Amino acid sequence: MKVVTFGEIMLRLSPPSFKRISQTNSFELYYGGSEANVSVSLANYGLETIFVTKVPDNEIGKSAINKLNQYGVDTSHILKGGERLGTYYLEKGASQRPSKVIYDRKYSSISTALPDEFNWDEIFFDAEWYHVSGITPALSEETFDNTLKSVQKAKEKGLTVSCDLNYRAKLWTQESANTHMEQIMKYVDVLIANEEDIEKVFSIKADNTDVEKGELDYDSYQKVAREVLKKYDCKLVACTLRTSISASRNKWKSLIFDGQKVIQSREYDVTVIDRVGAGDSFSAGLIYGLLNDYSIKDTLEFATAASCLKHTIEGDFNMLSVEEVESLVNGNASGRVQR
Amino acid sequence: MKVVTFGEIMLRLSPPSFKRISQTNSFELYYGGSEANVSVSLANYGLETIFVTKVPDNEIGKSAINKLNQYGVDTSHILKGGERLGTYYLEKGASQRPSKVIYDRKYSSISTALPDEFNWDEIFFDAEWYHVSGITPALSEETFDNTLKSVQKAKEKGLTVSCDLNYRAKLWTQESANTHMEQIMKYVDVLIANEEDIEKVFSIKADNTDVEKGELDYDSYQKVAREVLKKYDCKLVACTLRTSISASRNKWKSLIFDGQKVIQSREYDVTVIDRVGAGDSFSAGLIYGLLNDYSIKDTLEFATAASCLKHTIEGDFNMLSVEEVESLVNGNASGRVQR
Amino acid sequence: MKVVTFGEIMLRLSPPSFKRISQTNSFELYYGGSEANVSVSLANYGLETIFVTKVPDNEIGKSAINKLNQYGVDTSHILKGGERLGTYYLEKGASQRPSKVIYDRKYSSISTALPDEFNWDEIFFDAEWYHVSGITPALSEETFDNTLKSVQKAKEKGLTVSCDLNYRAKLWTQESANTHMEQIMKYVDVLIANEEDIEKVFSIKADNTDVEKGELDYDSYQKVAREVLKKYDCKLVACTLRTSISASRNKWKSLIFDGQKVIQSREYDVTVIDRVGAGDSFSAGLIYGLLNDYSIKDTLEFATAASCLKHTIEGDFNMLSVEEVESLVNGNASGRVQR
Amino acid sequence: MKVVTFGEIMLRLSPPSFKRISQTNSFELYYGGSEANVSVSLANYGLETIFVTKVPDNEIGKSAINKLNQYGVDTSHILKGGERLGTYYLEKGASQRPSKVIYDRKYSSISTALPDEFNWDEIFFDAEWYHVSGITPALSEETFDNTLKSVQKAKEKGLTVSCDLNYRAKLWTQESANTHMEQIMKYVDVLIANEEDIEKVFSIKADNTDVEKGELDYDSYQKVAREVLKKYDCKLVACTLRTSISASRNKWKSLIFDGQKVIQSREYDVTVIDRVGAGDSFSAGLIYGLLNDYSIKDTLEFATAASCLKHTIEGDFNMLSVEEVESLVNGNASGRVQR
Amino acid sequence: MKVVTFGEIMLRLSPPSFKRISQTNSFELYYGGSEANVSVSLANYGLETIFVTKVPDNEIGKSAINKLNQYGVDTSHILKGGERLGTYYLEKGASQRPSKVIYDRKYSSISTALPDEFNWDEIFFDAEWYHVSGITPALSEETFDNTLKSVQKAKEKGLTVSCDLNYRAKLWTQESANTHMEQIMKYVDVLIANEEDIEKVFSIKADNTDVEKGELDYDSYQKVAREVLKKYDCKLVACTLRTSISASRNKWKSLIFDGQKVIQSREYDVTVIDRVGAGDSFSAGLIYGLLNDYSIKDTLEFATAASCLKHTIEGDFNMLSVEEVESLVNGNASGRVQR
Amino acid sequence: MKVVTFGEIMLRLSPPSFKRISQTNSFELYYGGSEANVSVSLANYGLETIFVTKVPDNEIGKSAINKLNQYGVDTSHILKGGERLGTYYLEKGASQRPSKVIYDRKYSSISTALPDEFNWDEIFFDAEWYHVSGITPALSEETFDNTLKSVQKAKEKGLTVSCDLNYRAKLWTQESANTHMEQIMKYVDVLIANEEDIEKVFSIKADNTDVEKGELDYDSYQKVAREVLKKYDCKLVACTLRTSISASRNKWKSLIFDGQKVIQSREYDVTVIDRVGAGDSFSAGLIYGLLNDYSIKDTLEFATAASCLKHTIEGDFNMLSVEEVESLVNGNASGRVQR
Repeated sequence: MKVVTFGEIMLRLSPPSFKRISQTNSFELYYGGSEANVSVSLANYGLETIFVTKVPDNEIGKSAINKLNQYGVDTSHILKGGERLGTYYLEKGASQRPSKVIYDRKYSSISTALPDEFNWDEIFFDAEWYHVSGITPALSEETFDNTLKSVQKAKEKGLTVSCDLNYRAKLWTQESANTHMEQIMKYVDVLIANEEDIEKVFSIKADNTDVEKGELDYDSYQKVAREVLKKYDCKLVACTLRTSISASRNKWKSLIFDGQKVIQSREYDVTVIDRVGAGDSFSAGLIYGLLNDYSIKDTLEFATAASCLKHTIEGDFNMLSVEEVESLVNGNASGRVQR
Repeated sequence: MKVVTFGEIMLRLSPPSFKRISQTNSFELYYGGSEANVSVSLANYGLETIFVTKVPDNEIGKSAINKLNQYGVDTSHILKGGERLGTYYLEKGASQRPSKVIYDRKYSSISTALPDEFNWDEIFFDAEWYHVSGITPALSEETFDNTLKSVQKAKEKGLTVSCDLNYRAKLWTQESANTHMEQIMKYVDVLIANEEDIEKVFSIKADNTDVEKGELDYDSYQKVAREVLKKYDCKLVACTLRTSISASRNKWKSLIFDGQKVIQSREYDVTVIDRVGAGDSFSAGLIYGLLNDYSIKDTLEFATAASCLKHTIEGDFNMLSVEEVESLVNGNASGRVQR
Repeated sequence: MKVVTFGEIMLRLSPPSFKRISQTNSFELYYGGSEANVSVSLANYGLETIFVTKVPDNEIGKSAINKLNQYGVDTSHILKGGERLGTYYLEKGASQRPSKVIYDRKYSSISTALPDEFNWDEIFFDAEWYHVSGITPALSEETFDNTLKSVQKAKEKGLTVSCDLNYRAKLWTQESANTHMEQIMKYVDVLIANEEDIEKVFSIKADNTDVEKGELDYDSYQKVAREVLKKYDCKLVACTLRTSISASRNKWKSLIFDGQKVIQSREYDVTVIDRVGAGDSFSAGLIYGLLNDYSIKDTLEFATAASCLKHTIEGDFNMLSVEEVESLVNGNASGRVQR
Repeated sequence: MKVVTFGEIMLRLSPPSFKRISQTNSFELYYGGSEANVSVSLANYGLETIFVTKVPDNEIGKSAINKLNQYGVDTSHILKGGERLGTYYLEKGASQRPSKVIYDRKYSSISTALPDEFNWDEIFFDAEWYHVSGITPALSEETFDNTLKSVQKAKEKGLTVSCDLNYRAKLWTQESANTHMEQIMKYVDVLIANEEDIEKVFSIKADNTDVEKGELDYDSYQKVAREVLKKYDCKLVACTLRTSISASRNKWKSLIFDGQKVIQSREYDVTVIDRVGAGDSFSAGLIYGLLNDYSIKDTLEFATAASCLKHTIEGDFNMLSVEEVESLVNGNASGRVQR
Repeated sequence: MKVVTFGEIMLRLSPPSFKRISQTNSFELYYGGSEANVSVSLANYGLETIFVTKVPDNEIGKSAINKLNQYGVDTSHILKGGERLGTYYLEKGASQRPSKVIYDRKYSSISTALPDEFNWDEIFFDAEWYHVSGITPALSEETFDNTLKSVQKAKEKGLTVSCDLNYRAKLWTQESANTHMEQIMKYVDVLIANEEDIEKVFSIKADNTDVEKGELDYDSYQKVAREVLKKYDCKLVACTLRTSISASRNKWKSLIFDGQKVIQSREYDVTVIDRVGAGDSFSAGLIYGLLNDYSIKDTLEFATAASCLKHTIEGDFNMLSVEEVESLVNGNASGRVQR
Repeated sequence: MKVVTFGEIMLRLSPPSFKRISQTNSFELYYGGSEANVSVSLANYGLETIFVTKVPDNEIGKSAINKLNQYGVDTSHILKGGERLGTYYLEKGASQRPSKVIYDRKYSSISTALPDEFNWDEIFFDAEWYHVSGITPALSEETFDNTLKSVQKAKEKGLTVSCDLNYRAKLWTQESANTHMEQIMKYVDVLIANEEDIEKVFSIKADNTDVEKGELDYDSYQKVAREVLKKYDCKLVACTLRTSISASRNKWKSLIFDGQKVIQSREYDVTVIDRVGAGDSFSAGLIYGLLNDYSIKDTLEFATAASCLKHTIEGDFNMLSVEEVESLVNGNASGRVQR
């Protein structure tokens, strides 16, 4: 069971504890990016996983690769070259103060990589699943072309293709997202989105819902899921539903639609340590469950538990074993010490 | 719009995270003091602001000045001399364990500065607003004299004078506070207090209220505000109302009385990161709103949102922009990441 | 009033903040162990206290002793020799992710100490109270023998003997615990346990209770206490009752039975900073109250408040003064800053 | 006495202590850049100094400005806009392992600023001295144009113009440096260079000298200085001469030629803490001495002592007072504690 | 070119900077062990390398494996099981104070692994070189048997076998070392030792040499090398020669004897950052040079330069590229910054 | 063998690594003071030692006591009360930059303690040795009176009295030091001084010596020692002789005169980590040797080796065992790792 992901891995710089960027004199260093995060999650679950990207041929690029190696991701298809590694600053929020992301990712090696740099035939050899997100095509026309070419090739070679919409307002407009993502949707089997992606990218809106105020109408989302699946003719639509009570406390659940029945997951009340990468850990959980022939319901609960737990882990990567996720799925949510 | 504040800036030493003083072997270093905090807040909002004090002529005094410079406060009127910079130790509390303050502020340069050391005519040149707190007059008879002289001069030169009562039981008795503050009140236009200051200093008590147990009767406070305004003949009385559920969680709101109507702000449920300086950030918000001709209601909501957010910021200073405060005023309280 | 405790002190290594072991590149270093924790608590309350153990004759063993000295524990009866200091890794949990304990305590100096190495006559000279826990007999047959011998000798010399059941599934089976602890129970005056120890060790189960899910039926525990006291003929049975809502939030209360009346303590809603050692701080509070002739009710409230506060303190040791505990007993639970 | 400098300020990220980038999981954060470093040195000496640049309009750009404010540099002429703040990674070397610099400075706001964005008339108002380095024109054709325009305008308005050659092989070729710098040299009064800059940029080589091996022939450098001054018709040529024994130990001296006599400074044997910015602190010392009418000899010794001390200070900025530099000039080189 | 190494990887805990164990309250965490260090060096040089060991099946064992993965070592042959990961405490010395090592490595998983647990046929498949050290056979009779079996098998399969004597007085006596190592020597092609190993293990002493006082007679070592090679009939004997001037400053050189000529390397004067693993980085350099058909002289200079540089790198692993080592070989020893 | 010392213990705050105070945002926390340092050294050597002082009755004072307890100093005679604990800031120097001490010790509890607060009869019960330094009498007239009274009482009770001159220019003038110390000298048996104390306090100058430039004429110091012993009629005069090559490198030796022969110690070339407390560790070594009946020569070498090693240890306290000191005395100065 080999899974390929493709996208950008960035250097993440965060002030320690709750310091603001304007106060700090050090940064904690993490690496992360939507698809890389999925790969690390899956490697932590014991799957073979290949992450494809391009990084600069310097110590920073090499360190990003090494960090992926540390957790067992296959990095042998990562290209070296280009000018820089995308960087982002993450200032952790608390209570009513939101986390703040400052991107410094333009001109990154991956965003300037040309379509013919990647040998998809080799990359997909022996693979079963291919995962991308809506961030990669948003980086540049070149990465859009790369993404489009890769999903076409993946389909052609019989892989299952999943896509996490991951709309980023700082990278492109809704119009541009729509035009580009609709082309990619033709090759997508499993669509993953959060509570606002679908509205932003496909203009399909959940009723009675105000995301900014943290009011979600779960039934409306069921309707949205049905519409999306119908329109884009994919096999599964999964949607994470975050109710942000504050930066420190979120409610977290999800739903999935397989064309027949909408299933909702359990809801978790989460004390947030670091919520970046929660969506990616959901995607990884979903892929893991489906590849291991879990039922749709079990898959959803696994993915939701995994992503619930991600909120408690520092950095972008979800450092969890299958056993730890299963333990939460099985109801051990009380956080008792085992000794 | 130039605002002058006058008081003591101290070196604050805090064990990292939740370590107790008896456990730590390092201190995080911040600078802070009620009026300095107000100045930094206002400078962060883009106002011109002068902080007046006296610091020792050594690296510690100079570092305090530099830190104020960093955030754009005008420090050109700060005197150098005297023996030491006031210091305080802050041990951060959590849950049922209260934060602990140990003062080592006696004999500080400012507390021994003589009344004729400050040239208030020069200092107030071109200024619109003067802010002091009840801490400065509590330091010593000399600083009381300095404060009294300064408010008289400020009035004389047509500045608006605001005063935050800020009663400190470790600095003086209620009797002494009463005698001294009543003299200063003659020159105060805008009085600011928290849920217990008015009772402690002016013996005007809110009914049905037990501050220690965190039970506040908001209607009673309305009555208190009316009484204060009447007795001391000031233009506005504003009062922050903290319900301490625990050291980790507070409810926070405020009210204001302009002689006509008592207005209450929205209430926030706050996960506390660092609550020191919350009152000062309220004062700064109030001054900012009034100087910018916000309505009384908008001013109160701005000040309350600013001080709500202060609880999430480490150190005494409120590191916030006007945009960030306005965003919370406008209802973005869910702490969602923007990216 | 001199109290003796006997057991293992370990080196505890914890990743900073909420980092996982698989992510960290540093460890914070604490020392702790159930009986050592009790001794430090009592020393912090001003009692004379002797901690008895055996540590290796190297810098690590010496540092453990020094740390006990720092807080005033009498370490003059600690033996030096053997191979190593027991070590444990504690990864702090949050929200739905439980804290993780990895023991590396086998072959420790204390676990291989022989029964005749300790001179109990000298150790107990002039002492009033002897406290052990169920961890020490679980370490090895040698430590069981040591423990048994010590409680016999303590009884003989007229000390009050308290025992905290502290069942550890990673150290022995329920069967083994039962066989061994029943022998020790013959000498125990005050039995202390948590919500699951009694069931695990004595097979006396509280009805309608699911510890894993955090559902406790307090009335059932009253029945359990009665049964235990009757069966083992001790004078007091005290039981802490933790409702784990999540790793970040616990409810905490306790009850005590003196053969006549079951008394329940106040319940605290706790934001957890570090819950290791909470039970030990309860034991210490109990011993303190009883030695100082507090009423059963006051003793229970003191012990419960002390252990409530322990949840807010990093490391295994409870760094609290009597005044701080009394302040919470007296209702100051709002965590307000005193200044 | 007002001094203007113009150039790029960068975010510097350094692993703590001697960790390599491939090992670290945090970065210490400094800000620095050749001309900004000169400004901070001069501000620390009490001079009025303006630093001109362009930074992005985000928290990172703002933090760079705040850091300059902290030490008293006038930042009111800094423009906000463009895409990013130049960044560089500095891995500190030791012994035979050289420090490693990784630039990530392309596309920075200053490198894309257009010539008409800066209002040099306003900037130079009332100023006496203008300092640039060879780094700024190397960034892009736009910054070259900006630099050229600025030195012309400075000359026109009667300022003294100093230029530190600062050849950077990672930014341009020797040919390009030559072509561009020769245009700027027409307006330069005081030329500053290190032991290899003049050869690299002007192809005027010191005999018997192997910089890589750390062998310098001081007499040859005298000849070089004479030639340069003659060729470019400037008033003073100053040259720092570093003998790198290892990354941990350097010898440091300098010489100056005023058209009449070559003066050599004392030589210092330096244990290196952080050598970045040593050249800039030399420039600042030179400007300070000349502006304060020190003799050429005294100026050189002041500049050399200041830059000797810079090697002991972490970060790019030279945190020194005039008194501290004078103390070394006066022979207190033994590093004795004063108490 | 595939290299296999076999031995123990330990958790290393070091107080930060120069703190003593008795002072610290945190440890920096590294992983290391003689043969693991060799593997990481070789992986950093781009060779394929397999490290064989056994680690406990818990987070600590897994983290050790992950750390090896990070730098590209093949960990697929590492067994999981047993009780614990060997641990050692390293307190860094300075000046006249020596570094202090405290071993807590008994009962480790590798030291209790049985000879038939490793499948050497599979492990050596396709490999060219096998490296062990004298530490592994010193751990226990089981690991001696494992080592002996492995070198026999390696010889049988045609691999070149290198052995670093690495005498550890804390693990076995000279007598025991002699008896055991003489059996292993039968299969060794390349013997590596430091200035005292050969005397301690084989009782072949260099004249006029006092290692403790740091006085080495290089000519005597030539005689020693000749004797060893003759006695044990290996192909190459290489010897590192450290002159400890103090814990902060060492001289470092080496010699090699190929049966014909003794070649001495250049000598380096080293400012020590962390000298643990220097010998291992010498072994790795030697293996690299020989596998890449460097001349004996070039191999020796490469190995010596690599191990010189190791002294500047924190942790046990040598974080260096071939280019960095070659740069020092080529004479760039002055530690100049490249920018 | 019980040793009593009396003086001030201060809180020491130091920026991490080589940061300047003007740069740091944290402080490392140590406790130290000349006589406390002597006590800790002696406790580390296994002697019974009592430190007498007065500290404020708050968490800071308590933490100072706890820190002394940690290393086994008897703190039962320390008084609690007064206003504050003396504090000092230590900025570590390097190379030509001297370490910087900023005192904030005025109004400390000990400096305001009255002569009748200490019960010297009880304190000296059963003691053999009493040690003071010239710092304590310099603090205030009260502490001078306390010191004078204590040495009189010590003499009376037959203790040996040692005094370390420790002249502090920031605390008193040479004149005042002379007047006061001459009174104390009447009771001193063993006088300890550094290379400049005797000149400063007693105006007995060593010829051909320039301390600031680091040029010492050892023969001259022999003459000085003779003169002092003669003039003040004490039994031994010992003098440490530091040649400051730079803040990073010192030469260190000492001499002693017993009325018959001047003995010089070995000289050490020291790489400095933290030189504060070196003199105190010399005093402690001297006392240890003399109390244990070492010969004068052996005592001097023990004291000199101990204080040489102190330069390598962070903080004021000398964390060394007798074995470690003896090892250096015995010639193991090469800093080789033992493993």
